[in-house]
Amino acid sequence: MNNFELFGNSENIQTFFDSIRSGKSLFTFVISYTETCEIPGITFAGADKNSIKFTPPADAEYLHYGYCKSIDQIPMTPDGKPTPGLLTKSALEFSSIPHLTINAGSKISPQLPFIDTGLSFGKNISIQDAMTDSQVSHAVDFGRILGRSLASLTDCLIIGECIPGGTTTAYAVLKALGFNARVSSSIPENPIQLKNEIVESALKRIDSDHPYSIVAKVGDPMIPFVAGMLSSASNVSNVMLAGGTQMAAVLAFASKIGFNEEKTAIGTTSYVTEDHSANFKDLVQKIADIPIISVDPGMNNSQFTGLRAFSEGFAKEGVGAGGSVISSMIKTGINSEKFLKIAEKEYQRLFT
Amino acid sequence: MNNFELFGNSENIQTFFDSIRSGKSLFTFVISYTETCEIPGITFAGADKNSIKFTPPADAEYLHYGYCKSIDQIPMTPDGKPTPGLLTKSALEFSSIPHLTINAGSKISPQLPFIDTGLSFGKNISIQDAMTDSQVSHAVDFGRILGRSLASLTDCLIIGECIPGGTTTAYAVLKALGFNARVSSSIPENPIQLKNEIVESALKRIDSDHPYSIVAKVGDPMIPFVAGMLSSASNVSNVMLAGGTQMAAVLAFASKIGFNEEKTAIGTTSYVTEDHSANFKDLVQKIADIPIISVDPGMNNSQFTGLRAFSEGFAKEGVGAGGSVISSMIKTGINSEKFLKIAEKEYQRLFT
Repeated sequence: MNNFELFGNSENIQTFFDSIRSGKSLFTFVISYTETCEIPGITFAGADKNSIKFTPPADAEYLHYGYCKSIDQIPMTPDGKPTPGLLTKSALEFSSIPHLTINAGSKISPQLPFIDTGLSFGKNISIQDAMTDSQVSHAVDFGRILGRSLASLTDCLIIGECIPGGTTTAYAVLKALGFNARVSSSIPENPIQLKNEIVESALKRIDSDHPYSIVAKVGDPMIPFVAGMLSSASNVSNVMLAGGTQMAAVLAFASKIGFNEEKTAIGTTSYVTEDHSANFKDLVQKIADIPIISVDPGMNNSQFTGLRAFSEGFAKEGVGAGGSVISSMIKTGINSEKFLKIAEKEYQRLFT
Repeated sequence: MNNFELFGNSENIQTFFDSIRSGKSLFTFVISYTETCEIPGITFAGADKNSIKFTPPADAEYLHYGYCKSIDQIPMTPDGKPTPGLLTKSALEFSSIPHLTINAGSKISPQLPFIDTGLSFGKNISIQDAMTDSQVSHAVDFGRILGRSLASLTDCLIIGECIPGGTTTAYAVLKALGFNARVSSSIPENPIQLKNEIVESALKRIDSDHPYSIVAKVGDPMIPFVAGMLSSASNVSNVMLAGGTQMAAVLAFASKIGFNEEKTAIGTTSYVTEDHSANFKDLVQKIADIPIISVDPGMNNSQFTGLRAFSEGFAKEGVGAGGSVISSMIKTGINSEKFLKIAEKEYQRLFT
């Protein structure tokens, strides 16, 4: 497919694409929360500090209803740039890929039917452990249970996430597991120094090399939960992790608990793979021998500044945008130009 | 199929069976609660009054793990007869039909990943309205949302339920909607006089013939929720309502909000269709022009009194037992004798 760039091990990629083209796909949207996002300057995922916790449920509601119930407008950056969920929604709707929301530690429940896991949100890793070891076990176990059930319903399970502040916890987990990561950000001027300070103070608390203990101390609930899903689901169906930095952390943790590389791929936007403040492609290839699929959603050609912003480094990825656009293109055969038109139509519906 | 008796309109039954035989099926288990079950003598769904509220989550846990987390043993009657979930679990496991639990008003959440709907449990209809009209709208809306999503993942959506005391609210709803129902019970000596007293006092509060108002006053949350599921799902895939009296009430309410009869069937046990204290077959045929599939699970031939009890009028149905056994037989080609062996093996695992 000319729409994509492929990196990593793309030996089985045709079979993978075929499962999306000819089979059924299911998009699961995992919402979560880490209090790390409350550190000033760490995220753009919300109009202001008090609204950040509403971003995950609001993204879920927007995907579902086309508008939000927990807040008045769709999630935006402080200066009004829309959630990457706009790309996700445009892609899923155009290709009729069904989706389910999973609450894996969101502070606020979405106002729609969702899968509940009983997980609590993660604590601020700059000052305390994110979770207990037993909460990590719970997350992995419930992820495994759900991954198996959902994978048995589909040919390709696509997993996206929304956890504001999650690139920082992802960075900490990657570093603690021994990967030399440089991670992306929802902010164009990646606040690397701030992230480094937070991560350094978090890493000091690590006193065991057991992966559960590491994630408990410096991670967030999304990472062990999605790793659990991947672990069981990849034995049943194809799985596409839809995301950037955070999904790299999921992969790193999953490589410790075991998963089937032959049925796993990671799909993201070119805004992540071409982010030179990060090292996404190298990082993923060090973690796992799987295909990396990168799509250019074509937003740089948009007539709307709100959409061009994605190509200028705002948000870059999130709500499984990249993986959703990839799946939609494979399933329907559209290219970036056509996708831009679909996304612009959605943008117009929302803002004019 | 020799294993089944068919009633009602069985014109499309081969297509329906084919969707189960060659396609994918998904069993959804809807758990709920009505305080009506706390009236002494109304249900056997629990070892004693205090444990009744744990029966729905415990049934879900048992289906899932093979044991319960909310209580020590699997749900039983006061004298130790097992939940009909034993038949459901044996059937689903043998045929590898996946299942998901949906909480539509259970007082207690199950300890497993489940789909949450935000619905509250129903009040005791002998003394007050079960719900508000807006809770009924919420139940129908969320049922519709979920029905559409889940049906798009499968070829046949099987819906079972567990709501202790639910035959009484079902009776009230059927009567209020103008159907001359005689309903079954989990107790062999159906407490008909007690049910009549409860229902009569509930019906006195009805002051509108709007179906939402009727269900709000004398129903329970399961009825509008499952009717909502049926309403949207039957436009997407085949749907089998797995149950007896309570699913008749769902059908009656669904016939008011609209559903696709051509893709709907009701599946239950012969213990319900041959219950002469009830009029299930006639009732369903008056409500909807759909196939009624009745299966004899063969428990009368069991060496275990706990399993023979089902054929002697205890429980009769519940946890979608009948529909699960039917689907399992269609998918795997087994007959009642073979199914009895599978259920006996499960009984032995649990009790010896």
